[in-house]
Amino acid sequence: MSGKVYLVGAGPGATDLLTLRAASLLGRADVVFYDALVAPQTLALAAHATKIAVGKRSGRYSTAQKFINKRLVDAARRHAVVVRLKGGDPMLFGRAQEEIDALTAAGIEFEVVPGVTAACAASAELGVSLTRRGVARTVSFVTPRAANGEPENDWAKSVTAADTAIIYMGAGLSDTICATLVARGRAGSTPVAVVEDATLPAKRIVLGRLCELPRIAREIGSGPAVIILGEVLRQALETQISREKRILRRCANQE
Amino acid sequence: MSGKVYLVGAGPGATDLLTLRAASLLGRADVVFYDALVAPQTLALAAHATKIAVGKRSGRYSTAQKFINKRLVDAARRHAVVVRLKGGDPMLFGRAQEEIDALTAAGIEFEVVPGVTAACAASAELGVSLTRRGVARTVSFVTPRAANGEPENDWAKSVTAADTAIIYMGAGLSDTICATLVARGRAGSTPVAVVEDATLPAKRIVLGRLCELPRIAREIGSGPAVIILGEVLRQALETQISREKRILRRCANQE
Repeated sequence: MSGKVYLVGAGPGATDLLTLRAASLLGRADVVFYDALVAPQTLALAAHATKIAVGKRSGRYSTAQKFINKRLVDAARRHAVVVRLKGGDPMLFGRAQEEIDALTAAGIEFEVVPGVTAACAASAELGVSLTRRGVARTVSFVTPRAANGEPENDWAKSVTAADTAIIYMGAGLSDTICATLVARGRAGSTPVAVVEDATLPAKRIVLGRLCELPRIAREIGSGPAVIILGEVLRQALETQISREKRILRRCANQE
Repeated sequence: MSGKVYLVGAGPGATDLLTLRAASLLGRADVVFYDALVAPQTLALAAHATKIAVGKRSGRYSTAQKFINKRLVDAARRHAVVVRLKGGDPMLFGRAQEEIDALTAAGIEFEVVPGVTAACAASAELGVSLTRRGVARTVSFVTPRAANGEPENDWAKSVTAADTAIIYMGAGLSDTICATLVARGRAGSTPVAVVEDATLPAKRIVLGRLCELPRIAREIGSGPAVIILGEVLRQALETQISREKRILRRCANQE
């Protein structure tokens, strides 16, 4: 017998941002292999499954990709419904291809269940659309974390060529991001937002300018975060600045 | 009294790719304003709501954006739960900002519920990840459809600067897309895929090369489609070509 492996997007964090299909598969799952970013409440939907953590967070404990691939293949040979649960969408910065290739090579059936990616969740939290008529109709999704052999700064080329940019897994590299983009001609005054733990109770949103990114990134914690960059944020940033000015004036008047 | 407007992503098509939050809101909705791309089964989840079509498809009937904005504001003044249901994710090519701005100006509370965007659904259907270690870590989401005053070809700059590109609402413009990208130095041999009606029973997937895009686009129908472009598709394309060759050889042997 050989079962089927479902590569399932768990969405950005909140359990109710899982798709109906993902929730139903978790309910039917025999085994669930899950990433570090998946919330316990989401995992709880897999009521009768064996749950196995294979989480990766940059700089922390991680199970080698080859070993994950092997475990997926082994599980599919023993169980009917194997779920590989990944934060966000499996096909955007989820390293799904390595697992798909391993499953294909082993002749194991698989299906990808798309999920809500972090960029869309962050944009929803901000109440700012990533595209906007007359302002932004190109959006670049990048990560500055290079694998061996990848050109160092190709991410920056893509960021500077797009109206709006979303930087995944970049909060820990904000000094480099700021310096590289400014050196490539992106104005230091470009509005940026850092959204950490989008859709979770612990969420944090900080707005500012590209030149302030290193300071902003220090304000946020160690949760998963995306950086959004572009003119679409201008209005939200200006609203925040006027609000802060109003508060400061009020405080000054009271003194 | 003033209700709340939920700008909700309906996902790529299949009803079970709706999020749990979206499904729950539809169940509670008093009024639902929906786009042309939303499936009837999805709408049916809004059991006791008044359902109002305000759909837009390029070149067909569409309700003017200003009129939609006004109707959302009016509805929120009469009902507690107003859902604005948009195909895919509201914040990626969904023109959500115009509605958000109108709601904000009218002092109406709103919330954005993110959804699965078409690119992730198309990638899932293909079984090909949009990012891949050592091959692609930048992904550009663009539309070649310009609003008044937008530079004609900025979308092409973003496409050529990224490893993988997703072109929304581009299937009807494939001649222009092919000519523009080749003129800008993208190889005619770059693998492309057109995915129409992703996640629906009527789905169609065609793989080929950039120089064949005009022909490929004619093969697909009039459903919503995304074009994916980039080296991540190379392996899928080569597998298809070998399969076709094998079939041709077998047919030749039988004659």
